[in-house]
Amino acid sequence: MPEQNWTSQNSAELKSLVDKLTGELDLYRANKLSLNLSRGKPASEQLDLSDAMDLSIAGNFKAADGTDTRNYGGMRGLPEARALGEEIMGLPAEHIIAAGNSSLSLMYFCVQTALYQGLFDQSGWQTQGKVRMLAPCPGYDRHFALAEEMGIELVVVDMQEDGPDMAAVEAAVRADASVKGIWCVPRFSNPTGCVYSSETVNRIATLPTLAAADDFVVMWDNAYAVHDIYADAPELASLHKAALKAGTDNHMVQFASTSKVTFAGAGVSFVSSGAATLEKIERALGFMTIGADKINQLRHARFLGGRVRAHMQQHADILRPKFEQVQSSLHQELGGLGIATWTEPKGGYFVSLDVQPGLAQDVIAMAATAGLTLTPAGATFPSGMDTQNSNIRIAPTFASLEELAPAMGILTLCVKLCTALKAYQAAQ
Amino acid sequence: MPEQNWTSQNSAELKSLVDKLTGELDLYRANKLSLNLSRGKPASEQLDLSDAMDLSIAGNFKAADGTDTRNYGGMRGLPEARALGEEIMGLPAEHIIAAGNSSLSLMYFCVQTALYQGLFDQSGWQTQGKVRMLAPCPGYDRHFALAEEMGIELVVVDMQEDGPDMAAVEAAVRADASVKGIWCVPRFSNPTGCVYSSETVNRIATLPTLAAADDFVVMWDNAYAVHDIYADAPELASLHKAALKAGTDNHMVQFASTSKVTFAGAGVSFVSSGAATLEKIERALGFMTIGADKINQLRHARFLGGRVRAHMQQHADILRPKFEQVQSSLHQELGGLGIATWTEPKGGYFVSLDVQPGLAQDVIAMAATAGLTLTPAGATFPSGMDTQNSNIRIAPTFASLEELAPAMGILTLCVKLCTALKAYQAAQ
Repeated sequence: MPEQNWTSQNSAELKSLVDKLTGELDLYRANKLSLNLSRGKPASEQLDLSDAMDLSIAGNFKAADGTDTRNYGGMRGLPEARALGEEIMGLPAEHIIAAGNSSLSLMYFCVQTALYQGLFDQSGWQTQGKVRMLAPCPGYDRHFALAEEMGIELVVVDMQEDGPDMAAVEAAVRADASVKGIWCVPRFSNPTGCVYSSETVNRIATLPTLAAADDFVVMWDNAYAVHDIYADAPELASLHKAALKAGTDNHMVQFASTSKVTFAGAGVSFVSSGAATLEKIERALGFMTIGADKINQLRHARFLGGRVRAHMQQHADILRPKFEQVQSSLHQELGGLGIATWTEPKGGYFVSLDVQPGLAQDVIAMAATAGLTLTPAGATFPSGMDTQNSNIRIAPTFASLEELAPAMGILTLCVKLCTALKAYQAAQ
Repeated sequence: MPEQNWTSQNSAELKSLVDKLTGELDLYRANKLSLNLSRGKPASEQLDLSDAMDLSIAGNFKAADGTDTRNYGGMRGLPEARALGEEIMGLPAEHIIAAGNSSLSLMYFCVQTALYQGLFDQSGWQTQGKVRMLAPCPGYDRHFALAEEMGIELVVVDMQEDGPDMAAVEAAVRADASVKGIWCVPRFSNPTGCVYSSETVNRIATLPTLAAADDFVVMWDNAYAVHDIYADAPELASLHKAALKAGTDNHMVQFASTSKVTFAGAGVSFVSSGAATLEKIERALGFMTIGADKINQLRHARFLGGRVRAHMQQHADILRPKFEQVQSSLHQELGGLGIATWTEPKGGYFVSLDVQPGLAQDVIAMAATAGLTLTPAGATFPSGMDTQNSNIRIAPTFASLEELAPAMGILTLCVKLCTALKAYQAAQ
């Protein structure tokens, strides 16, 4: 059914299309399904890959440098955990703090420190009045929520295939000293799955030199640094190297974790920056904690050290069929209709689907009537407000392959039916 | 040598006393010792008691309610971890959130939330101008440091044998709406080891009804809740029950952890409050993290659940000889001289020693010349400022019994020598 059919059909033809699609949806409804594509969580089989990590202590709690990991101390984390950070983040361990189970907590803490104490010689952002951060959208809801909770205003910029719209980003940071930072998920961005191009990485590294604010910070959440699903997944250029060249390394704060490498929520997180900023972060952390869980760091280093990529291949083998199922459903059901576009990520945890403006909420609500839970419309925008009302985040990892086929069937059907309903209403 | 000798002796007699004690110290100095009584850390043998905890998962990552602890979710923590919290804190699990490895982080987070977002219907403390908290002294340096880092002014009140000087506390909270909270370590207080009396607990529970501030909070860090060393250690009255009676439970925020039960820095922490405040805390935590390490919670619950007191008996058996060594040295070397007083705690991690005003820094510096590291003078006061310059914190847990005898020998000798030197100077 080519694109023109959806707009050129007359009212009667559209009515019959709506009836036909409604009939198909009623078949799904009759099955009383309970499906869910909203959860950006690893599946049970992925978690199984790391079960053996629990055996890696085996009575030996001593780190390689002799540290008794059972006792207090060591704000930068174990050397072998920092080496694991190097393997994941692709930058020198000396620039890395290995921390606790949550990189989100590290981000929260760094923004809060920037806001109230200041990461540089200046006092905190908040002493200077209104604080704004740039939010490339669609993006990660938890980044936006934590910033808004702290009273930071988010300025939306478009997410493109090679990263944020850098012309818009550069214009914003030049124009307004209240723009203090930008949120980035640079590889397999949540939810589009795009990988920032080398040019984008270089331009982001240069932002502090353009910014009206002296205390501009790039929040670089490399959550999917090693989360390739396909062998031809694009590499990410080194922000660390680009920032060293631009002299801006203290304005880059990078994050990563093993939450989607080993166990979600029971992993190790990492933060990295230039020497001065890393010291600031370390000092500030010292008021909040005596140190991270070093035993869990040791478990991770022993289990994963030197074989992160090989381990991630096993994840990829589990995830690839799921991502292929999503793509084949989208192509088969929506391909060529001109009523939706979607991304085809080479890694990460999400696929981003854009339906016709105004329809995302309707599609998601309709899917729920057939037993399919989707991420709420707008979740990928600040304040949950997608002004286009068109973006839908598909999270295919947690569902089984058997659940994915009917789930995608319902989703694509609802996209068609909502679009047909709208065309029918317009034709009245 | 009775007290009067130190003041009534003439200059020549004092000179000879100084020379004799200096000679004794030189003998220690000649041994080039490296001793340390500054570390409030468990000893290696105490940590050994929990080594078997690492075996408690044994391939079964499912919590009793079926939760897969390897995956995301569950902000209140596992039910069995919250039950462990009940066993330690002595209040119902429904009022407890089981969290990550650091109760200090929970305290930091709660103060920050109170400061910037508010724990009650009011906005944060900071919107109302100057913020003060009461600091019973001597007290715990990390409480004071985190508050001061956030710009909170600490108001010193005296720590007495049954807890803070409650007349002074009540006067302060009545008089000044900027007094927003009080720091408490109610059982085996750091560093005096005192246990708050029932009357003190009741009066603390009633503070919010007296306070000029509507948003007054009691920060109740029950760090040594189950850390008895002697069988006759006094129990702590229930703040939870007292607050329910006074209608102030939402103004009490209680903390505990297993850091000195299992592994220091790799344990589970707990926070408790009334239903409304606990919901506020849970909601605020939701911006910072997706949840705590549930696998480690499960390890703890399986290993410790139902046998916390028995486990702590094993700690007590290791610690008792150390605390007895400290007391016997103090009594033998300083008893009856009238030049120092000290506490005799029945549990916890510290003994508090008060020398003559003006001498603490000198004693600590002199001890360092003989190879003994002590907690810096003033550490138990806000801004590290002991206006009396008399308090010395003794932390005997980490050192071995063999190290404790010479360490206490040096400490008590330095107390005598510094006191004699001062008397000699006065007699010139």
